Amino acid sequence: MIGGGQLARMMQQAAIGLGVRIRLLAEGPDVSAAQVVPDHRVGDHTVLADLQEVAGQAPVVTFDHEHVPPEHLRALAAQGHVPRPGPDALLYAQDKGEMRVRLSVLGVPCPLFELLSGDVEEAVDELADFGYPAVLKTTRGGYDGKGVWVVHDEAQAREVLALGQELIAEELVDFRRELSAQVARRPSGEVETYPVVESRQADGICKEVVAPAPDLDPSLREQAQAVARRVAEELDVTGMLAVELFETADGRILVNELAMRPHNTGHWSIDGAVTSQFENHLRAVLDLPLGPSTPLRPWSVMVNVLGGAVQDLLAQRAVVLDEVPEAKIHLYGKDVKPGRKVGHVTVVGDDLEDVLATARRAATLLQDGSAVGAVDR
Amino acid sequence: MIGGGQLARMMQQAAIGLGVRIRLLAEGPDVSAAQVVPDHRVGDHTVLADLQEVAGQAPVVTFDHEHVPPEHLRALAAQGHVPRPGPDALLYAQDKGEMRVRLSVLGVPCPLFELLSGDVEEAVDELADFGYPAVLKTTRGGYDGKGVWVVHDEAQAREVLALGQELIAEELVDFRRELSAQVARRPSGEVETYPVVESRQADGICKEVVAPAPDLDPSLREQAQAVARRVAEELDVTGMLAVELFETADGRILVNELAMRPHNTGHWSIDGAVTSQFENHLRAVLDLPLGPSTPLRPWSVMVNVLGGAVQDLLAQRAVVLDEVPEAKIHLYGKDVKPGRKVGHVTVVGDDLEDVLATARRAATLLQDGSAVGAVDR
Repeated sequence: MIGGGQLARMMQQAAIGLGVRIRLLAEGPDVSAAQVVPDHRVGDHTVLADLQEVAGQAPVVTFDHEHVPPEHLRALAAQGHVPRPGPDALLYAQDKGEMRVRLSVLGVPCPLFELLSGDVEEAVDELADFGYPAVLKTTRGGYDGKGVWVVHDEAQAREVLALGQELIAEELVDFRRELSAQVARRPSGEVETYPVVESRQADGICKEVVAPAPDLDPSLREQAQAVARRVAEELDVTGMLAVELFETADGRILVNELAMRPHNTGHWSIDGAVTSQFENHLRAVLDLPLGPSTPLRPWSVMVNVLGGAVQDLLAQRAVVLDEVPEAKIHLYGKDVKPGRKVGHVTVVGDDLEDVLATARRAATLLQDGSAVGAVDR
Repeated sequence: MIGGGQLARMMQQAAIGLGVRIRLLAEGPDVSAAQVVPDHRVGDHTVLADLQEVAGQAPVVTFDHEHVPPEHLRALAAQGHVPRPGPDALLYAQDKGEMRVRLSVLGVPCPLFELLSGDVEEAVDELADFGYPAVLKTTRGGYDGKGVWVVHDEAQAREVLALGQELIAEELVDFRRELSAQVARRPSGEVETYPVVESRQADGICKEVVAPAPDLDPSLREQAQAVARRVAEELDVTGMLAVELFETADGRILVNELAMRPHNTGHWSIDGAVTSQFENHLRAVLDLPLGPSTPLRPWSVMVNVLGGAVQDLLAQRAVVLDEVPEAKIHLYGKDVKPGRKVGHVTVVGDDLEDVLATARRAATLLQDGSAVGAVDR
């Protein structure tokens, strides 16, 4: 496992049950997953030798994030290691330009886009043709709203272009809400499709997820799931794939982003599904038969806990468990920094309004120490 | 955490979510829980210095088993460590004689019993008065049917008495089935009561558990739960308490055994309840508010996987996941030895017969490599 963040940490919970022994390449001796995986070594995922050492005799190499350089992934594969997802697939989760071009070729519905020239004046001309407003995105390395800018005119565009990054322009989609469609896919081809969920964002960061997406038109749901399956198959994705989607104001779906790993929009499945995304990621990359994504209860709501007013999450944990005993708390073992994802809370149940209010209340208590603005239980 | 067996291993899954960092005293470098708990040291739970070293500055000391000598528990407590459950409680899970006397004083329904003299001839006389058949049990150290003998006459009794162990005699109860009532209890007094389950044994070993116990008379259920709460409170148990019970042929309940830790009869709760017994054990010993034991689905069935015909559980895992994808497999990272508990399987659902057949099929496949004798799906 390359990368010691919270995804690798939560993977370990599933690995314990399956009897899978994870060897971890961690960014530091006490990062999130290194706290819970005995066989970890500290190293740098941009250094091939570190990747080779941790890969060792492992039957498969998988990832907590998408930041391993493609040339290193190819080198590992050439040496007989088995990266899953493989370099040819992962490229489309690493590079938004490559992703847009490939999905367009496949006929997968996407926002209008344009790859921008590296030359500022050429890019300005291209944007003038493309039209404003436009969304500018770095092709690589963006996450949680970082590396994304909405520009309304040339002056604003020039500020972003001046950063000298490789960019694509996309239309500013008039969307009703954001959805996420996840599938797990094995090398042998088996695919398990998760319920389509609604992802609610604030400042570019996923704030809460409702599973399944309420009041979703069945034909849109089927389209979203078909898109996720098609992308997984055409791009030969192994492991979990998350396809983040816009549901447009005029009732279409458009692909926003791809992630080839367990994803924040699937955390609900730990407590809310027969088989969590973490278990199915492990099952998929090990080419084990997949488990059903069937929800255990009609509704699951996951709310992220970001760094907020509460500094001592372990002390505040007692308050949350007291006030909201049914909340499933997931702490990532991270220091609190403003806006940083430090944990999440999931609540499952039969009544969406209750479940939503309870989950929000628990997350707000954990993050900010009060339930101001939350609905009473 | 003292002891590195499968209970400590499964505790780690709950600890990861809660942000609890376990420091483990393990029997060896690669025992079940040492495989998944980074901060482990190898030592002997009968050596006080080893216990002291692992206890260190931990806020609380808890246990994978009940084999720490009572005098060491008292020494730890005297030195300011915080064993939970404490030595005065744990004694009644360690010594069946002490347990029987104490429960009798409390008026808790138990089988008829007699503490036998250490002198063989005196014990023979006592047994003659007590009557045959009788169940002889070692007061300490018995488990999974070991240290238990049914004797029908003096000759058989003399064979057991010749072993020179401290024994109690109990009536051979004419029971309809075995039940288990679990509670979690915090030092501050809060108690969470789990559904009463049915435990089906073979050769003294728990084979399968059905949660909740089917067709249980509501008044017996309430009695069983009241007994568990009363025992937890009177004995000042902290953490999980399992009260194993006989449901007698004439419709009473009698206490068979006590366990003061997560228990095999509660493994179903990992996949079948809002709060697993492992999470509530941690919450209880850390004096955190307890979580609801509410089942997620109407029925959960857990079937133990013992050492059988299958030697390579990891290879066989693929077969089971293929044939029974909805089975939740829990492997303990142990070498297969005949009859040894090496894992378990849980299935949840709405129809008991389906759930039972599916769980049995998965466990049989994992244990013996075929589903002979199991009901077709």
